Amino acid sequence: MTGATGVDGRPRHLLSIEELGADGLRTLLQLSDTFVEVGQREIPKVPALRGRTVVSLFFEDSTRTRISFETAAKRLSADVMGFSAGSSSLKKGESLRDTVETILAMGVDALVVRHRSSGAPLQVARWCDEISDGRTVSVLNGGDGWHQHPTQALLDAYSLLERLGRRPGDVPSREGVSSASVGDSRHSRVARSNIEAFTLLGADVTLVAPPTLLPAAMPGWPVSVSHDLDEVLAKTDVVYLLRLQRERMEGGLLPSIREYTATYGLTIERTRRLRDDAIVMHPGPMNRGVEIADDATRLLGSLVTDQVRNGVATRMAALFWLLGGSIDG
Amino acid sequence: MTGATGVDGRPRHLLSIEELGADGLRTLLQLSDTFVEVGQREIPKVPALRGRTVVSLFFEDSTRTRISFETAAKRLSADVMGFSAGSSSLKKGESLRDTVETILAMGVDALVVRHRSSGAPLQVARWCDEISDGRTVSVLNGGDGWHQHPTQALLDAYSLLERLGRRPGDVPSREGVSSASVGDSRHSRVARSNIEAFTLLGADVTLVAPPTLLPAAMPGWPVSVSHDLDEVLAKTDVVYLLRLQRERMEGGLLPSIREYTATYGLTIERTRRLRDDAIVMHPGPMNRGVEIADDATRLLGSLVTDQVRNGVATRMAALFWLLGGSIDG
Amino acid sequence: MTGATGVDGRPRHLLSIEELGADGLRTLLQLSDTFVEVGQREIPKVPALRGRTVVSLFFEDSTRTRISFETAAKRLSADVMGFSAGSSSLKKGESLRDTVETILAMGVDALVVRHRSSGAPLQVARWCDEISDGRTVSVLNGGDGWHQHPTQALLDAYSLLERLGRRPGDVPSREGVSSASVGDSRHSRVARSNIEAFTLLGADVTLVAPPTLLPAAMPGWPVSVSHDLDEVLAKTDVVYLLRLQRERMEGGLLPSIREYTATYGLTIERTRRLRDDAIVMHPGPMNRGVEIADDATRLLGSLVTDQVRNGVATRMAALFWLLGGSIDG
Repeated sequence: MTGATGVDGRPRHLLSIEELGADGLRTLLQLSDTFVEVGQREIPKVPALRGRTVVSLFFEDSTRTRISFETAAKRLSADVMGFSAGSSSLKKGESLRDTVETILAMGVDALVVRHRSSGAPLQVARWCDEISDGRTVSVLNGGDGWHQHPTQALLDAYSLLERLGRRPGDVPSREGVSSASVGDSRHSRVARSNIEAFTLLGADVTLVAPPTLLPAAMPGWPVSVSHDLDEVLAKTDVVYLLRLQRERMEGGLLPSIREYTATYGLTIERTRRLRDDAIVMHPGPMNRGVEIADDATRLLGSLVTDQVRNGVATRMAALFWLLGGSIDG
Repeated sequence: MTGATGVDGRPRHLLSIEELGADGLRTLLQLSDTFVEVGQREIPKVPALRGRTVVSLFFEDSTRTRISFETAAKRLSADVMGFSAGSSSLKKGESLRDTVETILAMGVDALVVRHRSSGAPLQVARWCDEISDGRTVSVLNGGDGWHQHPTQALLDAYSLLERLGRRPGDVPSREGVSSASVGDSRHSRVARSNIEAFTLLGADVTLVAPPTLLPAAMPGWPVSVSHDLDEVLAKTDVVYLLRLQRERMEGGLLPSIREYTATYGLTIERTRRLRDDAIVMHPGPMNRGVEIADDATRLLGSLVTDQVRNGVATRMAALFWLLGGSIDG
Repeated sequence: MTGATGVDGRPRHLLSIEELGADGLRTLLQLSDTFVEVGQREIPKVPALRGRTVVSLFFEDSTRTRISFETAAKRLSADVMGFSAGSSSLKKGESLRDTVETILAMGVDALVVRHRSSGAPLQVARWCDEISDGRTVSVLNGGDGWHQHPTQALLDAYSLLERLGRRPGDVPSREGVSSASVGDSRHSRVARSNIEAFTLLGADVTLVAPPTLLPAAMPGWPVSVSHDLDEVLAKTDVVYLLRLQRERMEGGLLPSIREYTATYGLTIERTRRLRDDAIVMHPGPMNRGVEIADDATRLLGSLVTDQVRNGVATRMAALFWLLGGSIDG
């Protein structure tokens, strides 16, 4: 955790759900309502961050997350610059710190950092705090290693509450929500962030996966574990399917994709056993036919499109909150 | 054809010249005049599409077409996002439909789609109509396989009429224009779109090429065929040279480049046999020394630069028309 | 040199420090003050180039220089388009001239050209002057081969004067400044531009390098040469470290990196021998541990961060000056 706080006591960075905490999470979810509304206007822009510069610093490809953040920044009227992994100064052997210092020296207000090493965004945030130079710079974690992907958790939590018709202030609610996180939670930053966010909001989370794809240790994680998807499906409100990375097969953690799908995939067969009001979520991109059947996203309860759409609004909320923007411009 | 129409009965998508029809073609050509005029202003921008988002979705590289569309969108004050083929979600095996749904969910107004498969933009347009979601999304074909490249035909038609001093309303004119399409019309979306546009405008089109590079079937195409370029040059008003793809050699469709140039290239020798008022066109990028001699673009009658310049204005017209922009902002 | 002049007798292009001359250099350095001030505002933007289009045409990768120019252009409210080396029309074998003509035809106001061939920006500038077409287009050299990198020299000169507390008008000053250019000045456009700029401003420049990395001929260059870094460090005001390219080792110009560092690197040992008020500069990206010790940039006298920061302001000055922008918009 970096001790730095930014504008009006708001945190300066968004690095993990744990650091954000329940209050921060609720604040961001409430703020997102405003930006969902902005997104429905004929001209879905506000001048809140006019003249501010947001840099996407992606050391790992992710068109989906990058475009969502860049769209969010543009709708806040910020200037957006992209700096991608294949860039020459990195190929020329420049250190991460020198790259960050170079970008900071050009004058920026926020860095969205995606990196294959867990902890890289935290490290970048520390450098930003050290350097400061009169100007404060916010770091947003766009996904780091197997560690965290906090804006994914934000958009997931927002989409779920929206569908349930609840307000962030209502949570934890009297009647809890049960959620199953199905698949490789061991190697998944999405799982890690989501489990933290969903439990902060009062949901009961069950991990469903073969033993090789469960976290090595889960000390203090308020989760249950099951190896029987069918049993879980019969009683769960929310089925969150994790993307199966092909590397897991190569790493010998799985006998075969076919067997994985048969045991842990949301097949057409299994969609019929879902409860009528069950909600299906997936962070994308989907491996259709592997962890999710081709038609499963056509289910009434599928939140997949809502998740993407709300991604822009929740990222607008995060940028706005950290940078202390003014709604009136 | 998608049945969808957009603002004020205007079509929602621009997928092919055939679907656009003679009336649509004339409307767009007339509208282009306005944007040619905008391009000559000291500040060549209008607020017509302020707050709208145009995404270029290029599954096949084309800097020329992409930059022309993006310049057009920026001059209309739209926000522009790029999504290119090498992007990670596609490499990760996401389906085209999921990619499109993801982009749509972020909230966009137009997609410019370029794809190596004929029909991909039509498919994307159908998905956009299906999904809709209250918001209409226009698809512009930026070139698909061997099928169509309608904005290329638009800019070609505009450049030709401009040079001839005619107004779109004058066409078909009393005295026709004769045009020769020289080269590989078999594998060319440019040829296909242009032949449709030029004949809609009343021109007589002759295809000049070796038999292996003529379309396999031309049922109902109102064109003549010739294998004798010299004979055609002596009597034609417009010589449209098609780019010779290197793959044609490898595919065994041509004995050698040298022989192609000798028989079908606009060599310096042949430029001397052109009529004084003959017009030379090429869609670019040119293989100088192959289908066109190095100095041929210095001819008085060369429209090559006009074609590029008018590309921005005609694409502004297309975006403006489909999205129902207002000139006054 | 191109004979063209632009707005109000200002030069149209920025191709080399030599062509810019002492007067032009001083004018740009004075103008940079204004943009350093703009960079400190809460909204660091001015409408000076609203509606103008700046294209970065980088045939050689350089994220650092490209982002600096693009940030500069955006802060002047220009529209920015990028055209990079891997682009398809170049891969398709289009000539440089055709690429340039295509971009010009779309309507642009400035091209920032980076190319591995010395002289390419000059060639592009000549084509721009030839084509003109009523509209003038400025070319800025973003680095060409071993030839010139004039905006690097500008930002270096500005950073040095700022640190010395001098105004451009003060130079050449009564008491000269001594500067050592350490490393491969033979293959370095940075060295070439800087030596010209520093000597124009009245500094005494000494080249320090092994004989294989000194220019083959230095006719008329007002420089001294030394092979003894320690002797030079004891008496010099400014130590400018040049990046050591790995290719030099492969080309047999150096026995080993370890030996280079021992003889010509600014090691920790050597930092202790620097004069108290010595200034250390490096154009980046740094090979830490090779030409510069890991901690050398933490020295009070390090200008590395200033160089990057002032890069944006001096490039704003250059774009503004060449394009004849108005501060009031």
